[in-house]
Amino acid sequence: MRTIEWKDDAENGTKKSAIAMIDQTLLPAEYRVIECGTIPALCEAIETLRIRGAPALGAAGGYGIALAAQNSTASSFDQFMHDLLAAARAIKQTRPTAINLAWGVDRVIGAVRESGCGTTNEAREIALREASAIADEDVTRNRRLGEHGAALLADGETVLTHCNAGRLACVDFGTAIGVIRAAVEEGKEIAVVSCETRPLNQGGRITVWELAQDRIPVTLIADSAAGSMMRKGLIDRVIVGADRITRDAVFNKIGTYTHSVLAKENGIPFYVAAPKATFDSTRQERDIEIEERGPDELRVLEGTMLAPVDCAVYNPAFDATPIENVTAVITEDGVAYPGRSESWGRLFV
Amino acid sequence: MRTIEWKDDAENGTKKSAIAMIDQTLLPAEYRVIECGTIPALCEAIETLRIRGAPALGAAGGYGIALAAQNSTASSFDQFMHDLLAAARAIKQTRPTAINLAWGVDRVIGAVRESGCGTTNEAREIALREASAIADEDVTRNRRLGEHGAALLADGETVLTHCNAGRLACVDFGTAIGVIRAAVEEGKEIAVVSCETRPLNQGGRITVWELAQDRIPVTLIADSAAGSMMRKGLIDRVIVGADRITRDAVFNKIGTYTHSVLAKENGIPFYVAAPKATFDSTRQERDIEIEERGPDELRVLEGTMLAPVDCAVYNPAFDATPIENVTAVITEDGVAYPGRSESWGRLFV
Repeated sequence: MRTIEWKDDAENGTKKSAIAMIDQTLLPAEYRVIECGTIPALCEAIETLRIRGAPALGAAGGYGIALAAQNSTASSFDQFMHDLLAAARAIKQTRPTAINLAWGVDRVIGAVRESGCGTTNEAREIALREASAIADEDVTRNRRLGEHGAALLADGETVLTHCNAGRLACVDFGTAIGVIRAAVEEGKEIAVVSCETRPLNQGGRITVWELAQDRIPVTLIADSAAGSMMRKGLIDRVIVGADRITRDAVFNKIGTYTHSVLAKENGIPFYVAAPKATFDSTRQERDIEIEERGPDELRVLEGTMLAPVDCAVYNPAFDATPIENVTAVITEDGVAYPGRSESWGRLFV
Repeated sequence: MRTIEWKDDAENGTKKSAIAMIDQTLLPAEYRVIECGTIPALCEAIETLRIRGAPALGAAGGYGIALAAQNSTASSFDQFMHDLLAAARAIKQTRPTAINLAWGVDRVIGAVRESGCGTTNEAREIALREASAIADEDVTRNRRLGEHGAALLADGETVLTHCNAGRLACVDFGTAIGVIRAAVEEGKEIAVVSCETRPLNQGGRITVWELAQDRIPVTLIADSAAGSMMRKGLIDRVIVGADRITRDAVFNKIGTYTHSVLAKENGIPFYVAAPKATFDSTRQERDIEIEERGPDELRVLEGTMLAPVDCAVYNPAFDATPIENVTAVITEDGVAYPGRSESWGRLFV
């Protein structure tokens, strides 16, 4: 199945809708599909990273509004829209840094509004159609992005990636990993080095898992081993995804900035693969809130103490990479070179 | 107690010797002192990092030869020396990168040889005296090193460190953390940022623990958050220890090179604190073997899967930081500036 899907169940004669998703907190030990039938359940799934990855969150946001529409028992259209907007607020505030979540929410709200429809049943249909379109478009968009990016990879190269910008970060195929997948589909031999990506180990748990499923060679390393590998000439390129891109910075998983500095130091191209929905033309780095996550992500792991229980922790989920450190940005429309290509400017209009 | 100590127990009338040490694999959940009464037990403790840290390993190497001397049942002095050399080989090969382990072993062997003694009882005494001297000297040396380094830290500064170059990496007091301790003893307010140091989390488990015991403010971060903190101006200086220093490179825990590049990029001084025994005047970076550790350090943690069970892993324990990235090296004799001070050259004679 896709990372996230809409599900209609007929139960005791009444239609019951839910958002089905692969629970990414359980991988690789267990592959389990869970269903969120309410907005609080969806918010919990987003907050605890059962679903994560900027493009997947776009679909989650869209489906979330469709779910709120299905579940609304409002007797008036005004009350119905009120329910949708309450759901929108709740969903958006789960994760403030990724732009796609809010984008998916707003797109479905906008579709309902702009349709001019006056009945809740019509609005439910429009919301679900728009949410499904977001999901479908994500897949075709990632395939196009992958093809553009694949041209940058040569046969036999080793590519380092951080966190998971793969199939499971999207509805399907992936962004950074989609580029690698597309290159492999073209017949190129590509080896991947996956940083484990502390503190939640998405690199080891998810990226290694999904690449192994596709039989693409992958080697797991500690985040802190990336620099040494680059200095030894063992890495040809770095490709990462993004949660938000402003004119001056790329926001992505904590550690991305470090890889960009190491790549620059060692003369290695540093690519960011992200759909156009990731671009934020209205803000700059200084305007963006970086989500800080709980201290226990670093203090304890499934009951094993990794540090004293009460120690102080600084645990930002993301960092900002200055755009000067980025060699190229790969989108569904092609490859843009920050500050150097006309196509770069067009991403912010 | 010290990190490592010699212990004589009278048991059933026969003297039984052992090397006592704090088991560092159990921290911070449990503080337990273990005793190694045989060379295989000592080798196991070193290999599994129950004791670790370059200066502590120097003492472990010295005490190891003293233990082999106590335990030898040789009837001739030749056979006795043969037993010592067999122990020396076994101990040295447990961890190839840290120079201090072999240095401690060789120093005690040398003391026995140079004494000209002819009886095993005399040799036993000489070996233990020399091993104890290594341990005692480590403490006084670290205090001197700390005083020299403390002059580099200003009141109110925040210092980032990686892994554990503290009391538990030494016999007592510490090298990198010893510098911080000495500055705090001088009345300076110093805040420490400790990188968790994957894959074995010595930063979170040991450095945070020992600083908390001393009530020195410390904040735990993921290794990959160091770059972002440096870019934001939250780090004033970086201080790390070293396992070996050649004319062209500093060998230390994997991730050290990355911090040096990030410090350079952000104009932050990068210091290495290490006793003179860490310096290797006969070799260069290319001659040094980097220890690779087992894949399960990254794949599993106390039964929790961090990655697919059979995935490929690259897990070097150390990296090499080119000496150009090092602002200053702090030893018991003072502060040396690589390539710029006369004192730097004297470290390699």
